[in-house]
Amino acid sequence: MKLIRLYVAGSLLPDHSVMLNIGQSHYLTHVMRVREGDSIAVFNGHDGEWRAEVAAIAKKSVTLQLQECVAAQKNSPDLWLAFAPIKNKTYLVVEKAVELGVSALLAVYTRHAVVKSINREKLMAHAIEAAEQCERHDVPILEEHKDLSYLLAAWPKDRTLLYADESGGGTNLKVLLLPLPQGKYGILVGPEGGFSADEQQLLRLQPQVKAFGMGPRILRADTAAVAALACVQAWLGDWEEQPHYAST
Amino acid sequence: MKLIRLYVAGSLLPDHSVMLNIGQSHYLTHVMRVREGDSIAVFNGHDGEWRAEVAAIAKKSVTLQLQECVAAQKNSPDLWLAFAPIKNKTYLVVEKAVELGVSALLAVYTRHAVVKSINREKLMAHAIEAAEQCERHDVPILEEHKDLSYLLAAWPKDRTLLYADESGGGTNLKVLLLPLPQGKYGILVGPEGGFSADEQQLLRLQPQVKAFGMGPRILRADTAAVAALACVQAWLGDWEEQPHYAST
Repeated sequence: MKLIRLYVAGSLLPDHSVMLNIGQSHYLTHVMRVREGDSIAVFNGHDGEWRAEVAAIAKKSVTLQLQECVAAQKNSPDLWLAFAPIKNKTYLVVEKAVELGVSALLAVYTRHAVVKSINREKLMAHAIEAAEQCERHDVPILEEHKDLSYLLAAWPKDRTLLYADESGGGTNLKVLLLPLPQGKYGILVGPEGGFSADEQQLLRLQPQVKAFGMGPRILRADTAAVAALACVQAWLGDWEEQPHYAST
Repeated sequence: MKLIRLYVAGSLLPDHSVMLNIGQSHYLTHVMRVREGDSIAVFNGHDGEWRAEVAAIAKKSVTLQLQECVAAQKNSPDLWLAFAPIKNKTYLVVEKAVELGVSALLAVYTRHAVVKSINREKLMAHAIEAAEQCERHDVPILEEHKDLSYLLAAWPKDRTLLYADESGGGTNLKVLLLPLPQGKYGILVGPEGGFSADEQQLLRLQPQVKAFGMGPRILRADTAAVAALACVQAWLGDWEEQPHYAST
């Protein structure tokens, strides 16, 4: 049986204990009904995965006693997703992006965007929950960029940015991916209404940017994000690895 | 500006008229507020895409007058998706699968499935809406199979079935896809709880079946379906084609 997994703050070291926050404590005791002595799994983004025992259940906090490191730290591939938040689907995109192993989530507000803000705290909590579920050892960072020009101005020179060009001007994603070496990449997916003409031009001027297309059907923004991530991860990511439990 | 697109029954021929059903009529008049003389686009799955004019708006039905064929019929790739319906996410999977161009949606009930039935009519309506939005000229068929053994017994001998093996035993999807020729394929994705041991064994006995994996992270069933479809479509499908409007 799989253990409950929780992302925790603080270092994971032999014989240390971890005090969970009120939300996690509530989840463990009231939702999952764990008892003292039960085992759960914890990770913090850099010390690997540990087995921990529920040592004490107080009214508002659960204390865990760390037992042993069960898997060495394994970081997700260095792949960024820049996305325009979209109505009713931002959480879906973040959840799928975490499962598909992105290392950074960059929300960017574009000209035709309908959604003009995100709730960072709630979105990050959703990302952490997805990381806990999908057995990652890390949690992506989440940043906000006030418009596309800010994102591009701050974009690292050595990181290729693949953008979903819904105007049909891009290279077929397969043809684009085939010759690319492993390295630092980001994917950019626009909002429901696509990029504006000046945003398209701005993107084309950027030397690190390559436009791609995903065939004759018009994908919704959230579908485009998940589809592009899957292809890039399959081609340049870590899909040659197996799930942790498959090797044990 | 893009025209409203509707999937209609009946043949599309010059000077013919089409009477819309009550749901589509309501949508056009009350949601989209079209008027007599406005143009919309229609398709029926085999006669291509046509421009039609709103000829008459009656209380419960709108009549369209067909004007001209604007695009020759283009069928989606011959790719099937067999999926175990999953809680709260079946509509999402169907919507994404339609956008990603499947030709058949095969719901199959498996041992560990939580969801034991679908509302065929509502699900088909959702598939049609997705087809209208993504600019397909066709709508996939939707079938139900009462369990995996029935699906496999009916599976065509000349169609390869790629199944998402969440136990970690499959070939990395990229490695699997690289040498495959274009042809007839299906993808099978299990339910939240995965396949049972006897279902796994049944799958392995089938000569047309190949198991694949998608890396070290555990994908939810809906993520797995979308990710696998994207990769297979990118590799063996029609992504070398452009959206229709990009070539006009």
